[in-house]
Amino acid sequence: MHEREPTPDGVIEAAKRIAGEVVKTPILPFEWQGRRLWAKAECLQRGGSFKLRGATNRLLQLSDDERARGVVAFSSGNHAQGVALAAARLGIAAAIVMPADAPAVKRDATLRAGARIVEYDRMKESREEIAAQIGAETGATVVPSFDDVDIIEGQGSAGVELGEQMRALTGARPDKVLVCCGGGGLSAGIALALPEAEVVTVEPKGWDDMARSLAGGEIVPVPDDAPVTRCDALQTKLVSPLTFGALRKSGARGVSVTEAEIEQAMAFAMRELRLVVEPGGAVALAAVLAGKAGAVTERTAVILSGGNVDPLLYAEIIQRQATEAAR
Amino acid sequence: MHEREPTPDGVIEAAKRIAGEVVKTPILPFEWQGRRLWAKAECLQRGGSFKLRGATNRLLQLSDDERARGVVAFSSGNHAQGVALAAARLGIAAAIVMPADAPAVKRDATLRAGARIVEYDRMKESREEIAAQIGAETGATVVPSFDDVDIIEGQGSAGVELGEQMRALTGARPDKVLVCCGGGGLSAGIALALPEAEVVTVEPKGWDDMARSLAGGEIVPVPDDAPVTRCDALQTKLVSPLTFGALRKSGARGVSVTEAEIEQAMAFAMRELRLVVEPGGAVALAAVLAGKAGAVTERTAVILSGGNVDPLLYAEIIQRQATEAAR
Repeated sequence: MHEREPTPDGVIEAAKRIAGEVVKTPILPFEWQGRRLWAKAECLQRGGSFKLRGATNRLLQLSDDERARGVVAFSSGNHAQGVALAAARLGIAAAIVMPADAPAVKRDATLRAGARIVEYDRMKESREEIAAQIGAETGATVVPSFDDVDIIEGQGSAGVELGEQMRALTGARPDKVLVCCGGGGLSAGIALALPEAEVVTVEPKGWDDMARSLAGGEIVPVPDDAPVTRCDALQTKLVSPLTFGALRKSGARGVSVTEAEIEQAMAFAMRELRLVVEPGGAVALAAVLAGKAGAVTERTAVILSGGNVDPLLYAEIIQRQATEAAR
Repeated sequence: MHEREPTPDGVIEAAKRIAGEVVKTPILPFEWQGRRLWAKAECLQRGGSFKLRGATNRLLQLSDDERARGVVAFSSGNHAQGVALAAARLGIAAAIVMPADAPAVKRDATLRAGARIVEYDRMKESREEIAAQIGAETGATVVPSFDDVDIIEGQGSAGVELGEQMRALTGARPDKVLVCCGGGGLSAGIALALPEAEVVTVEPKGWDDMARSLAGGEIVPVPDDAPVTRCDALQTKLVSPLTFGALRKSGARGVSVTEAEIEQAMAFAMRELRLVVEPGGAVALAAVLAGKAGAVTERTAVILSGGNVDPLLYAEIIQRQATEAAR
């Protein structure tokens, strides 16, 4: 049970709290079907994704005593790097629970950020239990990846920035924002930051549990037979009452995109925005390009949420898309 | 002969003049050998390179009469897109003289920006003569790519922004800036914008005529037997007295980098900065990574000048670098 729900004021406070610790990522214009739309390039965040925001907001609110005991998180991806970087910056010891077979590139990034890696066997052990055990033994604070008020409010700082940046450049805040959705921390935070905007969550096809939950009015999980997706950042099987609740209150709805549409969006971002976007970071753009975003205007924005993609996979996707486009 | 030389005040005026028309591109931190350095991501500029700056500064100073007669430029690359985009924004007709065998991707980008393409035969005709002829026949103003006071001062606006951005984020302007150099418009403009900084021009190996000119105190051309380079944006055979003069006065020096070092920098930018950088746009970063930049501090900045690269070539480079790194 959480003591309180995330709020618009909490998001604004979080944005102020973490301003000196995160990159104020740029918004960049791009042309689509004769319109100028906007992309918030969160792939340019330190650590390569928005995850630094929530982690920093959470860690800055630890007591001196809690800081001394360290933090622990379970993730093999962007949240691990976010927690590791935030902890290093604040001089807090961080342990990251990661499967023994995690890709070397992710292990290296976490180690370089200064965290300790705790390995586990994905087939036999539960990362939640291991993290909880470390917490119990050492007194370290477990930092969840989305089911936490401070995390959600911290991620929402991207929406606060987006609103300010669009007002400065165009005279008005966004009327529609497309956001990727795994556990829903980023999308819920943005919905709180920009209450006047229509928020559309975007998920990979078959993993659109937030879309179905919002449509049905109650949380449903991803089915066990969900298809394979390259969006490793969005493979969350169950959203949280906190994120679902904030999105539902805001009137958000969700859509899904195919793997092919995601690849096309990654190639578009490479060519037109000169940004490296990972599969999970490209779903919001994919929804626009695939015509699944509904009506778009010059006040529509997409969040490019991350850019941590294996270089070989990235090269393969860019090559395939360029070859197909040339046909 | 030019009426005047480019000046620091001229650069500051240019930065003010074009502020509403160009993207204030972000500066992004990156880690290198335990230090935090800064990259000015000019690949995120509209049109994918800094060239929009000079073109906009030049076009904004045309008289109504000159605007009505249009502009003409010769280029098959970034300058073409810069002029085309600036002209379209200001409602000025633009003709771009381009070889008949220019890559389709560059033709398309120029056409999409709203310019007319005038083809010529690279083997038999001179693009300078064709542009001059169009100018004589139609009264269109020829917009040079670097040998022009307004162009140099416009490109220098990137340096004005860099100084302001680093002061805001770190408390101090840069003490060293590494900049790619073709004709020298960008590097000369930045030297004028940041007189207290050491400016180091970076060129592809064998094309380092600016480096040799600065070292010898007089302009020397690129030799006819210069090696093949992928830096299409930096293949200028002779720099101009305007750009050379400004760089020489500032005490700038030049270094060169190999094609292999450039590829490594492109892969680094992809992995660590999530930016798509073209070969010519990566030379300044390459100089740092190859240890050719001399001493670097936390006040050192590199300019990532452009990101217009053929996707197939880009994928090939990223794939090769990732494969080599895995060995």
